[in-house]
Amino acid sequence: MSKNAQYYISNKAQSLPLNKEAVSFMVDGYVKNEVSDPQMAAWLTACYIHGLDDEETILLTEAMVQSGDQLTWPDHLRHDGRYRLVDKHSSGGVGDKTTLIIAPLVAAFGYPVVKLSGRSLGHTGGTIDKLESIPGLRTDLSEEEIEAQVGRIGLYIGSATDQLAPADKKMYALRDHIGLIEEPGLICSSIVSKKIASGADAFVFDIKYGQGAFMDSKDKARILAKKIEKACEYFHKPCKIILSDMNEPLGDAIGNGLEIQEVIRVLSGKVSQGPLIDLSIDLAANMLALIDPEKPDINHWKKQCAMALKNGSALQKFNEMVQAQGGDLDEALDEETEFSYDFYSGESGRITAIDAKVFGIAAHDLGAGRLDHDGIHPAAGITLDKHVGDTVFTGERIALLHYNLERSQYLYPTIDALKKAVTIDTQVEVNPFN
Amino acid sequence: MSKNAQYYISNKAQSLPLNKEAVSFMVDGYVKNEVSDPQMAAWLTACYIHGLDDEETILLTEAMVQSGDQLTWPDHLRHDGRYRLVDKHSSGGVGDKTTLIIAPLVAAFGYPVVKLSGRSLGHTGGTIDKLESIPGLRTDLSEEEIEAQVGRIGLYIGSATDQLAPADKKMYALRDHIGLIEEPGLICSSIVSKKIASGADAFVFDIKYGQGAFMDSKDKARILAKKIEKACEYFHKPCKIILSDMNEPLGDAIGNGLEIQEVIRVLSGKVSQGPLIDLSIDLAANMLALIDPEKPDINHWKKQCAMALKNGSALQKFNEMVQAQGGDLDEALDEETEFSYDFYSGESGRITAIDAKVFGIAAHDLGAGRLDHDGIHPAAGITLDKHVGDTVFTGERIALLHYNLERSQYLYPTIDALKKAVTIDTQVEVNPFN
Repeated sequence: MSKNAQYYISNKAQSLPLNKEAVSFMVDGYVKNEVSDPQMAAWLTACYIHGLDDEETILLTEAMVQSGDQLTWPDHLRHDGRYRLVDKHSSGGVGDKTTLIIAPLVAAFGYPVVKLSGRSLGHTGGTIDKLESIPGLRTDLSEEEIEAQVGRIGLYIGSATDQLAPADKKMYALRDHIGLIEEPGLICSSIVSKKIASGADAFVFDIKYGQGAFMDSKDKARILAKKIEKACEYFHKPCKIILSDMNEPLGDAIGNGLEIQEVIRVLSGKVSQGPLIDLSIDLAANMLALIDPEKPDINHWKKQCAMALKNGSALQKFNEMVQAQGGDLDEALDEETEFSYDFYSGESGRITAIDAKVFGIAAHDLGAGRLDHDGIHPAAGITLDKHVGDTVFTGERIALLHYNLERSQYLYPTIDALKKAVTIDTQVEVNPFN
Repeated sequence: MSKNAQYYISNKAQSLPLNKEAVSFMVDGYVKNEVSDPQMAAWLTACYIHGLDDEETILLTEAMVQSGDQLTWPDHLRHDGRYRLVDKHSSGGVGDKTTLIIAPLVAAFGYPVVKLSGRSLGHTGGTIDKLESIPGLRTDLSEEEIEAQVGRIGLYIGSATDQLAPADKKMYALRDHIGLIEEPGLICSSIVSKKIASGADAFVFDIKYGQGAFMDSKDKARILAKKIEKACEYFHKPCKIILSDMNEPLGDAIGNGLEIQEVIRVLSGKVSQGPLIDLSIDLAANMLALIDPEKPDINHWKKQCAMALKNGSALQKFNEMVQAQGGDLDEALDEETEFSYDFYSGESGRITAIDAKVFGIAAHDLGAGRLDHDGIHPAAGITLDKHVGDTVFTGERIALLHYNLERSQYLYPTIDALKKAVTIDTQVEVNPFN
């Protein structure tokens, strides 16, 4: 049999191990449109069912890295080799705005940060969509412009171009279309290839688990973490992996502009506790410990980070970045939707669960996400008054829904879904007058 | 999770059993273009890897039958219920022209025969392509025209329309494109659905095995046969299954017009032995035993068939059919290609193997099959002088290659392939002057 797409599909369908030749043929061929969508779908299905071992995962990651541009950053951004350029990746969550907190937080200590991010995927948000809810803000600077800005203010957050691991982009869209996402080897190669191609020296990975994440259990997140560690080892890139809970939304806001407002509150030191602060400080401290080989003490950095949130230095860095990239933050903070709806509790008791995925889809439908014929509404989404562990009484507000007329047909289906997504233990007695 | 294509793909990828709802969603959706090619490719890959059990195979077969027209034939074609309308199917072979022999052979006994056939697939030939090498011959009669012709002369061979099991047609093309054909449940549903939809009362199936067939071993052919029996039982259709060897090409000719010439030689009683005659008589006798419930003795029918080939009655029926459908047989028998090439043996000894698949591909390339930019050449292909078991001496002709200028670039690659496809035991001493 000649070595065509059918040959390689049939081999993996029979569970024969992938080799470099097979992976290159399929991945390069797919980028060049020589391997068709149905052929790639069949091959990915076989990869999904039989799984990818560590060697296969690395082969796939490498082929994806080589499918497009591989960025390099000049050494002066590393202070002539004294620091590492460190990138951070989150595996996608609901209400996760940590990138927008930790990038200025790390930069506030004088370490240069270049952060290339993506747009929203499915029910999870995307850093670039959040950032673009700030009117005028550019996220598409050229490599030269990025170098100049980072040289000047030490911070850039922008879009990863289509030319970073284009094979991953195309294969990820196809996996989404056929509904086969959750295979650790495929997820690992998707995550790591984009990071390697973007040219950093070390990485912090935030792997989410739970209802709002791609990995629904902590055990599965651990398997993915191991694969990511092995892949980074192969590419000689130090990395640190944090597993974080995504069973309830992260923080108070879900939706692009609403999350920018929450970011500003956090960077202003107005939020002093909760999972969003804890995770942001944990991720930033781990990045800082990787960046500066002379200061590897994570606990030292955690204290420093808490301080930088309180003293306004992280906020100042964020403001510098927004200004450098042309954004008007005041206008962003003033923006509101046409309508809002108070989502009240129908019971009294203690909240034991808030389904992050349902809230993510709800915010998406209300305007935080794209639909076929309608773009993103910057100020739309959900703000939460309550979290897991809080008590609530009948008629007390759990969340506020923000939406415009164009998405109003989603309001009542959304309310129905949200009612089922909040679990309340009514055995717990609540006194509203306490 | 809502029940969309992704849901059903994911279920089968996890090896959950298919139910009626899943099969209907995927098959009906695919015909209506609501399920995409990549989604169906992923689902078929999952079906291929995990296999289909008997119940799943029947569900798939039924969904394919219901995807298009279901023909019914008037009872007078059954002599008011005294006879069954019997159809025959072959699973595709190289040089297999049995349909064109046995349909007139059965009709020669006065039993009506309606045979709906397909075109060539891959390296195997198709009855309709062979028949259309006869200039003027129509294979696209309407149901009314078919009934009229069969009422008058008792025989019709023509094309199955696109509206018979259209789901199968579309899914088969996709399986071919992704290279995942050989799963017994998928093959069974493909074969049986077309037969059920074409409205006959009982079936004879000729399941090929060996290098030139889709099932490469007799064991695999047996597994497929069992599945076909169970599916026919479900549809209350009596059937008989013959397993036949397709390790070497069947008969002397490979190629459309060349095979018509061989059919005429067989129907004229000029060929008295060999696998082609044996298989044709076996299939025809099994059909006849199913057609007439009062005469179920297969051996009786084998003798009658041998006689009908000798006495010219089968040939006469074939000629009546060609005339009724507007074909000019004399012109077909005169047709020749522009060039021919003598393929000689380079060794002396006994032929122990002739690879049917390689010869099938060779004949296809020389003009018997379609290429992207070139149709079929009616007189092109290969005629064999030697078969497995024959002795051959150095310089003796094994085969004659027939081709036109348009395909001449395939001649030398074809010769190279054919050299490797003929195995000669040179330990056997051959005296050319014997």
